[in-house]
Amino acid sequence: VATNERIVTAAVVIIGNEILSGRTQDTNLREIALTVGTWGIRVTEARVVPDVESVIVAVVNEVRARHDYVFTTGGIGPTHDDITADCIALAFGVPLVEHPLIAAQIRKREAPPEIMASRLRMARVPAGAGLIENSTGGPPGFFIGNVYVMAGIPLVMQAMLASLAGKLTGGAVMVTRSVSVYLPESVIAKPFATLQQQWPEIDMGSYPFQRDGGRYGTTLVLRGTNVSALEIAVAQVRELIVAAGGVPDDPS
Amino acid sequence: VATNERIVTAAVVIIGNEILSGRTQDTNLREIALTVGTWGIRVTEARVVPDVESVIVAVVNEVRARHDYVFTTGGIGPTHDDITADCIALAFGVPLVEHPLIAAQIRKREAPPEIMASRLRMARVPAGAGLIENSTGGPPGFFIGNVYVMAGIPLVMQAMLASLAGKLTGGAVMVTRSVSVYLPESVIAKPFATLQQQWPEIDMGSYPFQRDGGRYGTTLVLRGTNVSALEIAVAQVRELIVAAGGVPDDPS
Repeated sequence: VATNERIVTAAVVIIGNEILSGRTQDTNLREIALTVGTWGIRVTEARVVPDVESVIVAVVNEVRARHDYVFTTGGIGPTHDDITADCIALAFGVPLVEHPLIAAQIRKREAPPEIMASRLRMARVPAGAGLIENSTGGPPGFFIGNVYVMAGIPLVMQAMLASLAGKLTGGAVMVTRSVSVYLPESVIAKPFATLQQQWPEIDMGSYPFQRDGGRYGTTLVLRGTNVSALEIAVAQVRELIVAAGGVPDDPS
Repeated sequence: VATNERIVTAAVVIIGNEILSGRTQDTNLREIALTVGTWGIRVTEARVVPDVESVIVAVVNEVRARHDYVFTTGGIGPTHDDITADCIALAFGVPLVEHPLIAAQIRKREAPPEIMASRLRMARVPAGAGLIENSTGGPPGFFIGNVYVMAGIPLVMQAMLASLAGKLTGGAVMVTRSVSVYLPESVIAKPFATLQQQWPEIDMGSYPFQRDGGRYGTTLVLRGTNVSALEIAVAQVRELIVAAGGVPDDPS
């Protein structure tokens, strides 16, 4: 990967009162970041928003203007609190329409009229939207412009995201290297900061940890798009750890 | 709790590249939401931001203006990538100063000058900030205005948050009730939507689930500040489930 390749960014918008109330632990942000990261798309912002139309519309319009891609999760089911499709249509200023392919899929399974009407809520997409396949058997997600709208249930979200592989345009892929050591952060802070100054194009982070046994240490994480530069910097990290009296990646 | 009690809101700002890259799974949002929820403080917005000064400053200033409280996590360690204190000082337009109590605590444990200098980074707080106790033994967090700045490590964040109990001013406490049933969402969507219209002050959500055994169902969640109204609405939810052919909270 050439270092002058364009940096492609994304925002993740997690829609749902259940995440903000603490009732549900979100795991979709991490899954999306890891997956699209391998496609050369960098998640640089995430928002968690309630099931409130005005908020969702405003946030989607804000982030779609400043990122290459937006991925939303949640709010595309058949109940009254599923308002994501309505909000995305409003955000793009287009009508919400029943998509014939989704409607046909939903109608295949018979149901009384009232239940069918609720299920057909899931066939409503903003006019002009394309579909995101859902290999779990439920209705698909959709995309319009640079906004990709997926389910909140992790397994369904993952199936939808997987179907986008090869369909989005990524840029330079961020490669990650890490070195752990049983030293406190402060012992390596100074030489690590100096190294960061020498490699402005590499993103260097320091994260303290405590292993199950109770032993404390630090993981130094280096991220960048130029793998050969990264390998040189990682070798220098190992040197500064040794100079500080530590053993890089001590397995004990 | 009176229903006309003020609604007190909070934003959570999660600071750190490691969350956006997917390297680390955030759990602090959920912990904060659950804990402050019991104090009558409602998290209505969360942001995940990278270790970029201009972004952190802008986001903190945006959310502190529209919420009663802001809780931040991450970026208060001793290394170069820990820039939260600098950013909060910038956001408030005050200098960053060494807090004598924190500095004295840090100096108790001897270290060579270079290592001590790195550790003393953790004594820097915005001028005028108060401290947030840290019972895990490390340096404290701090608060300035309505912004509470805590560590990113979950156990340390939880210790800091616990020390705030009784010190913040909450409003009406949101009470949650839920009823689960082995029915698809669509089967109860219509009567549930009608019930929501009858109870505008109660927040009603529908969440599909799949139990380990593979059995599908729906959890209906009701949240509100008026417990007696909530209990009536929950009884009505149970009735609509029975009318739809389901068994409320079937343990099988």
